[in-house]
Amino acid sequence: MSTTDTLPRPLTGEMLIGARAIAGTDKPVRAIEAATGLPMEPAYGGGTAADVDAACALAWAAFDTYRETTPEARARFLEACAQAILDIGDDLILRAMAESGLPRGRLEGERGRTVGQLRLFAAELREGSWVGARIDPALPQRAPLPRPDLRLRHVPLGPVAVFGASNFPLAFSVGGGDTAAALAAGCPVVVKAHSAHPGTSELVGRAIRSAVAACGLPEGVFSVLFGSGAVVGQGLVADPRIKAVGFTGSRAGGIALMKTAAARHEPIPVYAEMSSINPVFLLPGALEARAETIGKGFVGSLTLGAGQFCTNPGLVLAVEGAALDRFLASASEALAAAPAQTMLTPGILQAYQQGVARLAGNNRVRHVASGAAAGAATQGQAALFETTAAHFRDDPALAEEVFGSASLVIRCPDTATMLRLAEELEGQLTATIQMQDEDLEMARALLPVLERKVGRILFNGYPTGVEVAHAMVHGGPFPSTSDGRSTSVGTLAIGRFLRPVCYQDMPAALHPAALRDDNPLGLWRRRDGVPGHH
Amino acid sequence: MSTTDTLPRPLTGEMLIGARAIAGTDKPVRAIEAATGLPMEPAYGGGTAADVDAACALAWAAFDTYRETTPEARARFLEACAQAILDIGDDLILRAMAESGLPRGRLEGERGRTVGQLRLFAAELREGSWVGARIDPALPQRAPLPRPDLRLRHVPLGPVAVFGASNFPLAFSVGGGDTAAALAAGCPVVVKAHSAHPGTSELVGRAIRSAVAACGLPEGVFSVLFGSGAVVGQGLVADPRIKAVGFTGSRAGGIALMKTAAARHEPIPVYAEMSSINPVFLLPGALEARAETIGKGFVGSLTLGAGQFCTNPGLVLAVEGAALDRFLASASEALAAAPAQTMLTPGILQAYQQGVARLAGNNRVRHVASGAAAGAATQGQAALFETTAAHFRDDPALAEEVFGSASLVIRCPDTATMLRLAEELEGQLTATIQMQDEDLEMARALLPVLERKVGRILFNGYPTGVEVAHAMVHGGPFPSTSDGRSTSVGTLAIGRFLRPVCYQDMPAALHPAALRDDNPLGLWRRRDGVPGHH
Repeated sequence: MSTTDTLPRPLTGEMLIGARAIAGTDKPVRAIEAATGLPMEPAYGGGTAADVDAACALAWAAFDTYRETTPEARARFLEACAQAILDIGDDLILRAMAESGLPRGRLEGERGRTVGQLRLFAAELREGSWVGARIDPALPQRAPLPRPDLRLRHVPLGPVAVFGASNFPLAFSVGGGDTAAALAAGCPVVVKAHSAHPGTSELVGRAIRSAVAACGLPEGVFSVLFGSGAVVGQGLVADPRIKAVGFTGSRAGGIALMKTAAARHEPIPVYAEMSSINPVFLLPGALEARAETIGKGFVGSLTLGAGQFCTNPGLVLAVEGAALDRFLASASEALAAAPAQTMLTPGILQAYQQGVARLAGNNRVRHVASGAAAGAATQGQAALFETTAAHFRDDPALAEEVFGSASLVIRCPDTATMLRLAEELEGQLTATIQMQDEDLEMARALLPVLERKVGRILFNGYPTGVEVAHAMVHGGPFPSTSDGRSTSVGTLAIGRFLRPVCYQDMPAALHPAALRDDNPLGLWRRRDGVPGHH
Repeated sequence: MSTTDTLPRPLTGEMLIGARAIAGTDKPVRAIEAATGLPMEPAYGGGTAADVDAACALAWAAFDTYRETTPEARARFLEACAQAILDIGDDLILRAMAESGLPRGRLEGERGRTVGQLRLFAAELREGSWVGARIDPALPQRAPLPRPDLRLRHVPLGPVAVFGASNFPLAFSVGGGDTAAALAAGCPVVVKAHSAHPGTSELVGRAIRSAVAACGLPEGVFSVLFGSGAVVGQGLVADPRIKAVGFTGSRAGGIALMKTAAARHEPIPVYAEMSSINPVFLLPGALEARAETIGKGFVGSLTLGAGQFCTNPGLVLAVEGAALDRFLASASEALAAAPAQTMLTPGILQAYQQGVARLAGNNRVRHVASGAAAGAATQGQAALFETTAAHFRDDPALAEEVFGSASLVIRCPDTATMLRLAEELEGQLTATIQMQDEDLEMARALLPVLERKVGRILFNGYPTGVEVAHAMVHGGPFPSTSDGRSTSVGTLAIGRFLRPVCYQDMPAALHPAALRDDNPLGLWRRRDGVPGHH
């Protein structure tokens, strides 16, 4: 057991429970080197119920102290986390490359994104409108009854369980978006590391832990557990001290957590990002004007990161005709040139291959094109299929996500059918409209349908690439997520871990800084309903 | 069947499904005159599954049109609803008095509150910061990748099922807070009227329907159904076109709706306000200085409206001693002078009497005082009990809500025990602290505990009386509500029926007014994260 926060190399295979590093005694987890399929050192002993209990107890003990740190103190902590992640240096990139099979450029970019979102939340903490502060001053002379003094702020929900995602070993994992948002909100975090990248998780976990220590915060602010979904994952969600859950993964996994959370004595919010096929609507004018360009751009989005994105374009809808054929020819050509890519895990590769085989074996689906053949048993080959609107409507299985570089083009007889199919889709993270000026009317007809179905609507772009910004929504109606009222990316995500509290006639000596009359934090607040820095 | 929107008197006993008025064919519901226990005319035929389907179909059909009405149009509609409710005149007050047993003054006040909250939401619509508009302009020169143009607004969830509450036949019923918030957000509403006040519900329902017609809105914006919880209530929550639920009622009722909502193919948010005992902490300095005054004030709050408030003070915690005895003496004296009051329904009266009998029959609970004896079989007699902290901790049933004018005083050996009991309480709508300056330290110790447990913390007041304001929170952690991230009272309630949508690189011709560069609605927005009217 190590009690220091110095980064040890080689990796120890230990869980990080507050300030302790401890080897799990349950069935061990081991990374599989993505490119070779071979197991990697070290083994990560799985956490037990006792480990879950220990991490939750520390998180709970830390909560009251941590949540009343100043926004400035939490901002500095997030910045320290970002710097500590950078300070790991190339070891982090090398380990993440080995565990995920993702290329260096992608992982360096993802590290930048991870660090960037920690820093963006630091800035958001300082800006302060996330507090949602409101003051309705007393009206002692009001008749028939005086109005009391009412002050409202948002407070953190409590310790949050964060589940690392397989496909973003940095940006949606130990130090990823949910962790950043929860820590910003004032919630301690207990991470269930994804078993596909335990070494990356240990490195980032130790970095954040060093920031906890350096900032003088209670050790329970942050822990990382390894192990099984049944013991560690379900155990965390069932623990009464956990007050919210952030998850990115499969629909089955997300729904299992939703059920556990709903069955608790005290149900808690679950923010599970699950499945999405991200329909792309090629409107007739755009198809006519830019079929070839769109074909190439589409394949670029489809094959990015071996298609292992929540926002991968898995469905294309267009009116059949010569322009659609031009799109398909262009996409086929681009796809043929797309190299096979190492996939994240043997399980993901197998599921992808099964999904592709299911489409290929469906006699109402036509195979359009494939990417370059796999050069190794760990690689996935991109694939494009097509079917008719009638077949698509008949077979709900065709609307299921195939996680990877596979997409299905729906030949529609007319735009009315495109609209109708849009109406029948399940909830999605994104929808994309490729359009020209002459498509405005059709876009206007699609928009209300899509607004009811998706979290983000893109125009003349592609859904992969999720900007970390103030106006981003990475979320959407079920089943794309379990709770469409929220986003997992961008500064609005802090709100998912907050709830409002009102103070009535609170003595001034007790006012939290955010609600003091002199507004020492310089917050944007609503005073008698009027917004301003007052 | 009537197709006019003229108010018919006498009441017709019909459901209002869009523009139609239709007699239900399921088992009829009949109001019971609260003061006499006698059934009232007319009978309200219960709705069937087909009626639920018809109302939901109309609501769904109205949604896209209604949600894209301008905020100004919806504001005028809410004002028209308010005026139409006033225009019913005294018939509304008389019918509500008969059905609820509540006195005229209370119901006139409640009407004012109902009208006031409709108008407050109209003002909120015009103010506009509820849109949460955000614009991150494109950064085409950014390296390595340009930033797209991102714009975010909040859109309504969809048709909302609102359940009328027994204890506020106007303010938390057909035209009450949830209806006002949902209509403001742009959500059509289907009300399941409470069976205790169907006549009041018909009157208000017809008033709102007349406003729908007068404002030229689609008829499906608003419907009112009568009937059973199993058929109409569960049917509404299970209907795929319903996207959120607002409910105020019992814990069992709320949990049943939560289960139905969670079991849907597409789970939806349920905002159920359920049970709360609203602890009152009498800190030592306050008790010493103001025991008698607090005793009187407490009894005023306890007996208000026959104790039939979600925020009724059902629990008092104090350190035992002479000052507490003075409080009890004062409260006993005030209570003895408190007249028995007609309760809302025979069922509520019976549950209240059983709750009081359970306390009276508990040999570890001492009866302290009672109100004046009931003068009629429909009246409830107020009651005050006490027990020790040790007994309270031993018997979880003592922390269950007794809906009505009953309260339990916990004699604590010291303030540490008060803190410990606070920590062990379930989630509450409110907590109240009676304090003097010398109690500041104890208040500081209590505050973090209460902030984790409750939605509103009051100082030197009493929890009954919920101001309709910007800074109000009427909500709290489970089981006080099913979703502590929200409030059912005050302008913040509009947020419970909204979710964010992001538009990426949207052509300017398609921008919703809220997101246009020239800001034609004059909204407060965040532009590149900076708040302002820009």
